[in-house]
Amino acid sequence: MGILGGMGPEATVLLMARVIGATPARDDSDHIPLIVDQNPQVPSRISALIEGIGADPAPVLAAMTRRLKDAGAEALAMPCNTAHHYAPAIRAAVSIPLIDMVALSAKAALQAGHGAKIGILGSPAIQRIGLFDTALEKEGMTAIYPADQTALLAAIRTIKSEGATPAARAVLASAASDLVRQGAAVQLVACTEFSVIADAAREEADVIDTLDVLTTEIVRFARRGDQQCFGGQNTHESRSNRS
Amino acid sequence: MGILGGMGPEATVLLMARVIGATPARDDSDHIPLIVDQNPQVPSRISALIEGIGADPAPVLAAMTRRLKDAGAEALAMPCNTAHHYAPAIRAAVSIPLIDMVALSAKAALQAGHGAKIGILGSPAIQRIGLFDTALEKEGMTAIYPADQTALLAAIRTIKSEGATPAARAVLASAASDLVRQGAAVQLVACTEFSVIADAAREEADVIDTLDVLTTEIVRFARRGDQQCFGGQNTHESRSNRS
Repeated sequence: MGILGGMGPEATVLLMARVIGATPARDDSDHIPLIVDQNPQVPSRISALIEGIGADPAPVLAAMTRRLKDAGAEALAMPCNTAHHYAPAIRAAVSIPLIDMVALSAKAALQAGHGAKIGILGSPAIQRIGLFDTALEKEGMTAIYPADQTALLAAIRTIKSEGATPAARAVLASAASDLVRQGAAVQLVACTEFSVIADAAREEADVIDTLDVLTTEIVRFARRGDQQCFGGQNTHESRSNRS
Repeated sequence: MGILGGMGPEATVLLMARVIGATPARDDSDHIPLIVDQNPQVPSRISALIEGIGADPAPVLAAMTRRLKDAGAEALAMPCNTAHHYAPAIRAAVSIPLIDMVALSAKAALQAGHGAKIGILGSPAIQRIGLFDTALEKEGMTAIYPADQTALLAAIRTIKSEGATPAARAVLASAASDLVRQGAAVQLVACTEFSVIADAAREEADVIDTLDVLTTEIVRFARRGDQQCFGGQNTHESRSNRS
């Protein structure tokens, strides 16, 4: 599994830790091999998408994609919801599949079965680019956003600089409560800063963390691979030592 | 920076988190780019070195090394002390430098300036392969080991399965205290499980975590690169967006 990472670097580390935690393992060799391009210098997605300035992230992501493929990746994952705006450029660069965190999270929200209004707990940028609106509409659902986006952005900045303070937790709980009032009993955490305090929102609603959705799919894909794929097409020399 | 990872996978994630924490950063783009081969299927170093069974890790590490070089790595680091036994095979595979965690840790112990006896807090395997004995002898120092290696191994297994329990912390503190009695005021943490509870040993002695030594050198190398290297020889397309 190739990881298009670094957006931000903490999200990539959190995904890797969750993949380890979600893998049934008695020994190192039971864990899932990953090739991770931790590239924090991908041009700012916010600048390009919202402010319309700076370099285009698409060709950088395409180059990373080709390098991961050349390094032996058989599939790709990207722990950054916003960057999924560039999924077409990534898919155009190589023939191996990109696991789509946004589309899979929309499906997970549908499966939760608590109505068509799905709350989105993320940065204001996530609302402005409309990524989840499109993905949820494909499943017949609607994205709902907390009214106080300024408070959410302030909480994200607090968590980045000071960690998960009680005040930041209170903001997330309040946003989740607001979304319930708006009719969204199921909510998606779409921001790594909120991933680490998702329990604060879980006291208010049925909360699905998009990073957990991606983690589950990576583990599922890798374990399917154990049974079907990693035979003759083995590019990772060491896999032959597993049996 | 290319990372020869997966030995074990948690150590690689911990190194990545520490590199992020040790990098002065105002934004994603200030962080250090890494290409990480998280390969938990490198054949067991313990089996090969101590039990004399299983596949040879050397060719797998050499193949990983070549892939990291091809993916754009300009230097290599490996968050596993034991695997440094195979440093010659890694160096023979490519022309880019391998940061030597064991040699650098020996130098850090020398610089600490508290005598020639250096305590080693690690698994029994670390004592048996004598890696630190050799590295410390080169600096005119001697490796000293806690008497109760069985307790250390039990503590490592406890931390792997149950986390950093008070009992595990007590074992590490007791080992550090034993080393002080043997004359080792400076001690090296040479095991990732003990990295997360190094403070328990720090109450007893002047403790240097080998993973911190590696972290510091990665950050130093990358920041030197900002000034000297990443100009015309730029292989990581996105770096040109940093200025």
